[in-house]
Amino acid sequence: MINYDAFFSRSAGNMKGSAIRKMGGVAAQGRDIVSFAPGYPGPDTFPWAEFKDITRELLSGEDGSVLQYGPTRGYRPLLEAIAGIMQARGVATAMEHLLVTTGSQQGLDLVARVLLDPGDVILVELPTYTGAITAFNNVQADLVGVAQEEDGVDLDALEDVYARLLREQRRVRVLYVVPNFQNPTGLLIGREKRVALLEWAERRDVVIVEDDPYRDLYFEGIASETEVRPIKADDRNGRVVYLSSFSKTLAPGYRVAWIHAPAPIAAKLELAKQATDLCTGVFDQRIIFEACRRGVLDRQVPRLREYYRHKCRVMVDALREAFGSELTWPQPRGGFFLWATLPPDLDADTMIPTAVEHGVIYVAGDAFFVNGDGRSFIRLAFSAATPDRIRDGVSRLAAAMSAQRAASKEVARF
Amino acid sequence: MINYDAFFSRSAGNMKGSAIRKMGGVAAQGRDIVSFAPGYPGPDTFPWAEFKDITRELLSGEDGSVLQYGPTRGYRPLLEAIAGIMQARGVATAMEHLLVTTGSQQGLDLVARVLLDPGDVILVELPTYTGAITAFNNVQADLVGVAQEEDGVDLDALEDVYARLLREQRRVRVLYVVPNFQNPTGLLIGREKRVALLEWAERRDVVIVEDDPYRDLYFEGIASETEVRPIKADDRNGRVVYLSSFSKTLAPGYRVAWIHAPAPIAAKLELAKQATDLCTGVFDQRIIFEACRRGVLDRQVPRLREYYRHKCRVMVDALREAFGSELTWPQPRGGFFLWATLPPDLDADTMIPTAVEHGVIYVAGDAFFVNGDGRSFIRLAFSAATPDRIRDGVSRLAAAMSAQRAASKEVARF
Repeated sequence: MINYDAFFSRSAGNMKGSAIRKMGGVAAQGRDIVSFAPGYPGPDTFPWAEFKDITRELLSGEDGSVLQYGPTRGYRPLLEAIAGIMQARGVATAMEHLLVTTGSQQGLDLVARVLLDPGDVILVELPTYTGAITAFNNVQADLVGVAQEEDGVDLDALEDVYARLLREQRRVRVLYVVPNFQNPTGLLIGREKRVALLEWAERRDVVIVEDDPYRDLYFEGIASETEVRPIKADDRNGRVVYLSSFSKTLAPGYRVAWIHAPAPIAAKLELAKQATDLCTGVFDQRIIFEACRRGVLDRQVPRLREYYRHKCRVMVDALREAFGSELTWPQPRGGFFLWATLPPDLDADTMIPTAVEHGVIYVAGDAFFVNGDGRSFIRLAFSAATPDRIRDGVSRLAAAMSAQRAASKEVARF
Repeated sequence: MINYDAFFSRSAGNMKGSAIRKMGGVAAQGRDIVSFAPGYPGPDTFPWAEFKDITRELLSGEDGSVLQYGPTRGYRPLLEAIAGIMQARGVATAMEHLLVTTGSQQGLDLVARVLLDPGDVILVELPTYTGAITAFNNVQADLVGVAQEEDGVDLDALEDVYARLLREQRRVRVLYVVPNFQNPTGLLIGREKRVALLEWAERRDVVIVEDDPYRDLYFEGIASETEVRPIKADDRNGRVVYLSSFSKTLAPGYRVAWIHAPAPIAAKLELAKQATDLCTGVFDQRIIFEACRRGVLDRQVPRLREYYRHKCRVMVDALREAFGSELTWPQPRGGFFLWATLPPDLDADTMIPTAVEHGVIYVAGDAFFVNGDGRSFIRLAFSAATPDRIRDGVSRLAAAMSAQRAASKEVARF
């Protein structure tokens, strides 16, 4: 029997599975489970008819380039469409800044590989997106958490952490933030704070990695276009690497996202991508480009805002009715997620088996914390389930919570 | 101005562009260039009508899972189809061995990340596939070359290199081989040598990474099914990680390939893939699965064997006519490539600008050597150009060679 442990790299030795992906596995086991776990878009939002037209036309031309290998940077007309999107978001854009990625997860992986050596410090929000945690972990970076306030990163905490690391003679290279409807908290970084963060990065010579998959999905009347303006839009000196994606607005089954980076960083990201997958799926890129060109994306976005706003309201109302004030959460103003605090006697991790037993799953909060915290939080995605299933899932969650409490009391009695 | 060099990881600092990808850029510049550079499949082989039917049906069902995120291991029915393919290749297969990858390039990247730490030794053939070189370079592995004979890796050289490294107290972890119609040489590793390599790996406790994208494309009557039997087929102890792909048989614009690895390695590869792109494009996977299920792949393969055999013959005939015995090469018995040795007075690298001037490109041999050799070789892909363009390209190459010689004499005279 071969001892494979002797063959694994240090990075492989430390790899951990994603809690979200694991929960996806639970949902896939075919039982009747209401899944609030993965942040999947609502499948009834996919523009089927348009995709059918597009693929038929793409394949009718018998144009070899549709199914061939493509340039590593991406399909040129798609890059131009992305430049248009970036300009509409307030970000000046040239071709040399852009790179199509195989989903934003690849963007995070490439950024990690190009900017971080083993042991390098990257600052992340407490909590932050698990996919980013695994990407940064896999290059053996040292992830250091910074507390958040209701309007995002706590600037005092940021400076404190920085000063402490400086005393330890450790250089901070990168700050990773999800400014719009953060995964998992749903929080927005406030306008002034965005400016302050950029100034801080300039002062401290740190690169900001701004991960922005949800910005289009603000709930009209509850949040606005001006509030979601990227940090990158005010980046005069090339201090910010910006990531965004078509996964939440068109469909994640096509793996098409992008990075906007200062030209020298974009050039390195291109080299890293060459070795990683040569190019993003060309057929996928052609489909996404056509969806941009034909206005599918533009028609889709306002519809999605209303769609997710409605689902969010359904979940909030159901939670309020089932839990009263026992659960608390910051009101989501966009995005896919509701971030709830459990009553102090409950532990999100310990409760998972009971929840599964009652036919509902969520992601326990500690998956999002790099400092071991988070067991009093649960992340509930309202994006994928239908309104009826959301109501049903919330009832199941309430039943699971009661059962969990009854069981704890049972144990306590002995 | 920010000094970005101060931000790059050591890996990024060392990244080099792929010569093949660069040549792809030259071809894309819109001039009339006959490209023998990238190993692109012939675009007229893509089964357009079948793909049109498949995509229409996939999108007609409005089944959300077609465009949703999917499991990291891959779409289950596709994994089962791959298991069938592997069994037909003589490899016993369970689900726990398999992982769908976003092209074989991702497979190489994942293998590199899971098996190699900076400074670790990986043995590769002289010459070997450039994409593998960049993937192993990007984890800062130390690539050490082993000479090849006409039937593949030179076993004496292999043992010599191993012994030398042992004396230097350096452990060899991995041996990377492309046994079938190797990229770039087109060589096949002989049957007995495959067995000997596996025995060597057992004795020396090394993992073999067997990269096998071309095995289906043997030229009937010139090579046979038994000659392409994978090393993996005789791997009783879990010593071999095997990679293959649909890119050369169906289409590379869908990025769908796979790895067959011992279960503990496959589990690590899955974790690495989670952080890299979450999952391979689900729509692509569904299309490829349908192409397997409907027999498109099975009908395609014999057609491709004839198609590439014909193109190879066209190139060989044209070269023979244009160059007589000035160019030499091992006769390709399958695959996409012809590996030619230039006359001693010519240098493949130096000749590139002259070749481009004459409207033809190739990949200079040194891109495939990890020891700095190779400047007397050129890799010519006969896979993508039409027969007429192949003949035309060979004439251009001959003209470029004459011009290059004339210019050298010109220089020599002064």
